[in-house]
Amino acid sequence: MDSVRVFAPATVANLGPGFDVLGLAVTGPGDVVEARRTDAPGVVIEEITGDDGRLTHDPAKNTAGVAAAEALRIIGAQGGVALRLHKNMPLGSGLGSSAASAAAAAWAVAILHQFEDKSALMPACLAAEASVSGYHADNVAPALLGGMVLIKGYRPLQLQTIPIPKKLVIVLVTPRFELPTAKARSVVPQSVPLCDMIINNGHLAAMIAACFRDDAIEFGKAVVDAIVEPARAALIPAFSTVKSAALGQGAFGCSISGAGPTVFAVCDSRPAGERVGEAMRAAFSAAGLESAVNVAVPDMAGARRIAG
Amino acid sequence: MDSVRVFAPATVANLGPGFDVLGLAVTGPGDVVEARRTDAPGVVIEEITGDDGRLTHDPAKNTAGVAAAEALRIIGAQGGVALRLHKNMPLGSGLGSSAASAAAAAWAVAILHQFEDKSALMPACLAAEASVSGYHADNVAPALLGGMVLIKGYRPLQLQTIPIPKKLVIVLVTPRFELPTAKARSVVPQSVPLCDMIINNGHLAAMIAACFRDDAIEFGKAVVDAIVEPARAALIPAFSTVKSAALGQGAFGCSISGAGPTVFAVCDSRPAGERVGEAMRAAFSAAGLESAVNVAVPDMAGARRIAG
Repeated sequence: MDSVRVFAPATVANLGPGFDVLGLAVTGPGDVVEARRTDAPGVVIEEITGDDGRLTHDPAKNTAGVAAAEALRIIGAQGGVALRLHKNMPLGSGLGSSAASAAAAAWAVAILHQFEDKSALMPACLAAEASVSGYHADNVAPALLGGMVLIKGYRPLQLQTIPIPKKLVIVLVTPRFELPTAKARSVVPQSVPLCDMIINNGHLAAMIAACFRDDAIEFGKAVVDAIVEPARAALIPAFSTVKSAALGQGAFGCSISGAGPTVFAVCDSRPAGERVGEAMRAAFSAAGLESAVNVAVPDMAGARRIAG
Repeated sequence: MDSVRVFAPATVANLGPGFDVLGLAVTGPGDVVEARRTDAPGVVIEEITGDDGRLTHDPAKNTAGVAAAEALRIIGAQGGVALRLHKNMPLGSGLGSSAASAAAAAWAVAILHQFEDKSALMPACLAAEASVSGYHADNVAPALLGGMVLIKGYRPLQLQTIPIPKKLVIVLVTPRFELPTAKARSVVPQSVPLCDMIINNGHLAAMIAACFRDDAIEFGKAVVDAIVEPARAALIPAFSTVKSAALGQGAFGCSISGAGPTVFAVCDSRPAGERVGEAMRAAFSAAGLESAVNVAVPDMAGARRIAG
């Protein structure tokens, strides 16, 4: 095989109480990487679309480029790869844009070389994330593997797939307002009051229990974050009214997706999700912000080959 | 019914990563409360055994007395109760001694009044704990309800029972050395580095997943605490060598039970537990401390009536 097209999904990191340890892949827009084998070693980025010209074509500084180069190394491949990267979600939106590009690029390289072990590509994806926003796996792991992933530990990297309640619907509302990950990370407290940690811990444990009990409602009610959400909420105009609108329309929980500004809400049916999404959109609109609504469900496949 | 005898088990709080949110009831020594209805309202403590005369008979300052008084109030009972309290575990050992007395007393009062809702007695047990060591439920909840209990939240109190891996064996080694809960609480950091919280969170989530997957080995490997264990370890002579001895004999995890000084280890069979317990006892002994070993399994019943 000489060329391949690979899609990787958007992802919701943290999910409320799971800062840096939980992430969920969701349906809807994701990134596409076209990869072509080259005789010359190394990675070339031939084209990037959908980024308004803002991403670098330097493969050493682009997450797709870094992930592809590391994947070639892990596989021990001869030759190199040329990439075309198609961004289908806004940058700096809290939907794991850089992670989707990395996961798609790494998996594309793997397919070109008949390499089938996704988990073995995780170091490539982590290296890519580290090059732009720090060493964290809560977006790249679900973008690559699909579903909901728990990062049990980082040294060494230990991942677990967690079952997902069948009725889970995740409403994602992305205001047209960019929040650079670096800025969103800068407000995260480096020291956490013990009492807040206990609140998050109780809800994190309850969220995992809800997953195994197939209970979307209890999953939503476990979306509580006393630590990072309060710090980041101030960076998202109208966050508290958007959250109130979601809960007022019956969402079981609502918080910030990853570093934001996308806000996510948990429902247990698509009609409820549509209603909640509209209320959230209207709340952003009342604050003068347009937003895009995606009523999503979990994406169980993660990075995968697509036609064309 | 005019009198009743009730047993309540020892409990392991925290379980590594679950500070203040997880507790497990275990077989072995527990406390016994004999309760007798009285015409006069209020609580009288007629006798306490097994405490070397150290616990107060003042019902307003003894956890059994406080729990009994609150239980009478919750039930709306006429008259009062006279208690005899038999302590079968050492005070200040990290095995939930005060919680066992509270749970036994509250449940004894309930039985005397044909009141069958254990959960409704939780506020009585919490009030009792608060009177001696702070408002926390991780010992009283499992002492009352049995099994493993998650405290999802405190305001309002939200409890969940978590399933337990069938092969779980908990080795408890209690050195003859008292560590007052107040002292053990005083060294707990009130502010936690974010990076340590992430370590604990990953392991807490993995522990809940292991419970639902019926995996005693993964449960044990999730016994990791980067926050409280390092602070309390310094208060327990030879803790690090005792832990090394446990892991060296094949325990899957090892940490401090509650506020200590009891050290617990996780195994998946009784023979392994016996071997691990002996190694831990020998390690304490080498440091000049005698210790008592209890190779336990989960106690699923919690507070219950016993004969006699």
